[in-house]
Amino acid sequence: MLRLGPLAATAARCLPAGPRPGPPCLAGSRGPLSRQVRAAADGERLPVLKTPKGTRDHPPAQAALRERLLSAVVSCFKRHGAAAIDTPVLELRETLVGKYGEGTKLIYELQDQGGELLALRYDLTVPFARYLAMNKITNMKRYHVAKVYRRDNPAMTRGRYREFYQCDFDIAGQFDPMIPDAECLKIVHEILSDLQLGDFVIKVNHRQILNGVFAICGVPESKFIPACSTVDKLDKVPWEEVRSEMVGEKGLSPEAADRIGEYVQLHGGLELIERLLQDPKLSQNKLAKEGLGDMKLLFEYLTLFGITGKISFDLSLARGLDYYTGVIFEAVLLQQENQHVEEPVSVGSVAGGGRYDGLVGMFDPKGRKVPCVGVSIGVERIFSILEQRLEASGEKLRTTETQVLVATPQKHLLAARLKLISELWGAGIKAEMLYKKDPKLLKQLQYCEETGIPLAAIVGEQELADGVVKLRVIATREEVDIPREKLIDEIRRRLEP
Amino acid sequence: MLRLGPLAATAARCLPAGPRPGPPCLAGSRGPLSRQVRAAADGERLPVLKTPKGTRDHPPAQAALRERLLSAVVSCFKRHGAAAIDTPVLELRETLVGKYGEGTKLIYELQDQGGELLALRYDLTVPFARYLAMNKITNMKRYHVAKVYRRDNPAMTRGRYREFYQCDFDIAGQFDPMIPDAECLKIVHEILSDLQLGDFVIKVNHRQILNGVFAICGVPESKFIPACSTVDKLDKVPWEEVRSEMVGEKGLSPEAADRIGEYVQLHGGLELIERLLQDPKLSQNKLAKEGLGDMKLLFEYLTLFGITGKISFDLSLARGLDYYTGVIFEAVLLQQENQHVEEPVSVGSVAGGGRYDGLVGMFDPKGRKVPCVGVSIGVERIFSILEQRLEASGEKLRTTETQVLVATPQKHLLAARLKLISELWGAGIKAEMLYKKDPKLLKQLQYCEETGIPLAAIVGEQELADGVVKLRVIATREEVDIPREKLIDEIRRRLEP
Repeated sequence: MLRLGPLAATAARCLPAGPRPGPPCLAGSRGPLSRQVRAAADGERLPVLKTPKGTRDHPPAQAALRERLLSAVVSCFKRHGAAAIDTPVLELRETLVGKYGEGTKLIYELQDQGGELLALRYDLTVPFARYLAMNKITNMKRYHVAKVYRRDNPAMTRGRYREFYQCDFDIAGQFDPMIPDAECLKIVHEILSDLQLGDFVIKVNHRQILNGVFAICGVPESKFIPACSTVDKLDKVPWEEVRSEMVGEKGLSPEAADRIGEYVQLHGGLELIERLLQDPKLSQNKLAKEGLGDMKLLFEYLTLFGITGKISFDLSLARGLDYYTGVIFEAVLLQQENQHVEEPVSVGSVAGGGRYDGLVGMFDPKGRKVPCVGVSIGVERIFSILEQRLEASGEKLRTTETQVLVATPQKHLLAARLKLISELWGAGIKAEMLYKKDPKLLKQLQYCEETGIPLAAIVGEQELADGVVKLRVIATREEVDIPREKLIDEIRRRLEP
Repeated sequence: MLRLGPLAATAARCLPAGPRPGPPCLAGSRGPLSRQVRAAADGERLPVLKTPKGTRDHPPAQAALRERLLSAVVSCFKRHGAAAIDTPVLELRETLVGKYGEGTKLIYELQDQGGELLALRYDLTVPFARYLAMNKITNMKRYHVAKVYRRDNPAMTRGRYREFYQCDFDIAGQFDPMIPDAECLKIVHEILSDLQLGDFVIKVNHRQILNGVFAICGVPESKFIPACSTVDKLDKVPWEEVRSEMVGEKGLSPEAADRIGEYVQLHGGLELIERLLQDPKLSQNKLAKEGLGDMKLLFEYLTLFGITGKISFDLSLARGLDYYTGVIFEAVLLQQENQHVEEPVSVGSVAGGGRYDGLVGMFDPKGRKVPCVGVSIGVERIFSILEQRLEASGEKLRTTETQVLVATPQKHLLAARLKLISELWGAGIKAEMLYKKDPKLLKQLQYCEETGIPLAAIVGEQELADGVVKLRVIATREEVDIPREKLIDEIRRRLEP
């Protein structure tokens, strides 16, 4: 959390300190607080000053950057016609159990305080499925931006937290194959391009192809999931390690592992799909054949979208979660701007998703399925990249939108400031004043420079006598007297982009 | 939750159902899910389909209304120069303990899963104080819009939930008296006026005045807080009941209770303040005198803001929370539009706040104080009013912002739709298409009418041959052929407000 220090300090400078002698309202501030309160106030039991492990505060500078990032993501979701929904942070425990495989042990559970047994949501996908089944909704295109919770080992510098935002876009409904799936990949492409995060690749695979591979390599169906999670490690560790884990921990035969190795190390484009469709063994497997058919159609649509250049059909992609049933994908950044390496290195996944046709059915009393496909944008990782970039650039983000500071050059003019500022507020102009009876003009102008306020509206005795307001442009120090009745229009004119 | 039914149904209509026969990607959707997953899919153990008690989902229509409400509140906060911060939903338990008096028993605690003992935040004020102390911030003007959690008895029709949004604006720092306090009241006035919720009054009081009253009526300081919480009930029950609770439960003498009654039933404006400043007993009490001095200054500033018409100095206002130390206030709506009663009736508090100069000091190792004053807008209550009003009006809120539907009149034109829609997305135009290979034109136009999409861009064989796109205005059914290269500009022109 140390990195937040300087930003917090910026926030601290947001308002200039007032006069030292406390205002009268402070005198009695030790008033009759409750017993514990007074105990604590007397320092008998001071709470540890920290946020829970794996969580953090967002000071204004970070909150402003995050707002930019989230609004960029949301505007893409809206461009694709998604509606927003919101679901509770709390879910019944039983709603979450058995949906996340190994992830289940990372779910935050609430204490039994009487009543229902609750947990904090682990992602936004299972609550979405619960929502669809609960309301008998058979088709919907929605986005959801909200925090989720995982008792994970945080790696906060790399943007991994226990409380973090997810930005999900999902399409539920029975439609013609691969059209919604293609749109999800288009969305990832649009967002990563818009954010200018540098070069990226979107790996695509299909659970049925993987299962087909396992099947023809002699893996019993009961071991498909474990084999999957082992294959998934190929982006981090070399094949030899993956192989030994398959044979060792997962108990596959060496021959099976070797045969799997021949397939899962393949990656390419349409030509690879065609090749595998001709593969004597794979083409005989129903699951694989269907999966490859989907992939071929998907690539056709992605070609029409003009984004195949960044798509890689990668048989090593498996994705951790249990509920995927079809197309799966994951976007990785190839290198960060500030790095200058010959070999583009992966800085990890910034988006992922896939098709989960069985999940809603798990919540439906009659097991009625609602096919779904969706994407989740890894905004925390992206945020930490943007944050590093901002720090490197030295650019200072404005944390407020104030347009005008109402200032006075002499003493005893608080009333004039209060009258003027409420006129500005009434006209919808974003205005501030210092909370002092008689602030120095210099301090007021410094505050504008520190916080980036472009204009100062100055009322002194002379201006009041003349019925004008002195409008000062902070950047140029230009000053001009504006008749009071024309002030609002003049400010609006000068604020026009 | 029943009231959500129709809205959920609306959401369900968001996308027209596709063809019944499942797409191939469904065939293998029973794939190798994990054991529990398959168990659940087979209906062995189906989770109860509900959200936790006191919580609710927000279907698109509600989410859209809520977005409107929150952005109105936030834009007011920004107009007053506040910066945004975010803090975790989780706090260390010890951070929350002993800050809420009787409220403490309503805190959600997390199960001890090893590591820190955690709880869900109860409000946004204590986390703000923790944040200030932790980062040694001595002055700051911030807003925070987020969910808080209370194990309360929900009254959901009246907008009371266990998970609910709070919208807080706070000013921290040592400034000249009553200037920040006055701005908080101005903000409440602006928000309630902007939202046009009907007539309202903002009750104002001062903890030191109440304490002064208790003192001169012979109440021992140890009983100030209990007496406070009893007085606070005067807006719901008649004085006689409050009196008997004071004498009975709270153990005050009948004489003390009667003397208190003479004061706490008073309400008025500046003239009442003046009268109490002349009150032989009260004017002799230091606390009361300071409090009345604050109130006089506050009314002076509120007069300059021109809002005293809606302000009532009400000695019965006490506010529940322990941490208030100075000015306290609460806004109540006097009557709802749809009600036609002679006597305006209070429909309950929609905003409240006050000064808490001791809270930050409770977190500071050296007990250093940072005086604070803030306001919290009761958006849930306001939301349920707006929701009822919307239902009454029969107006249907758009849940998406889609501007153009890309449609085709004949079969085998999916490729043409995919090419055109990606051009529109590329130009930043919000566009949708149906996820079917060959949808009927009628269905496509119906979808526009159902979801409020204003334009349809139609490409048929003829249009493709002529290098044009048929642009249809859904409302007027006017159709005009636009040269492909002019389409984007034409759409933008027609979408201009």
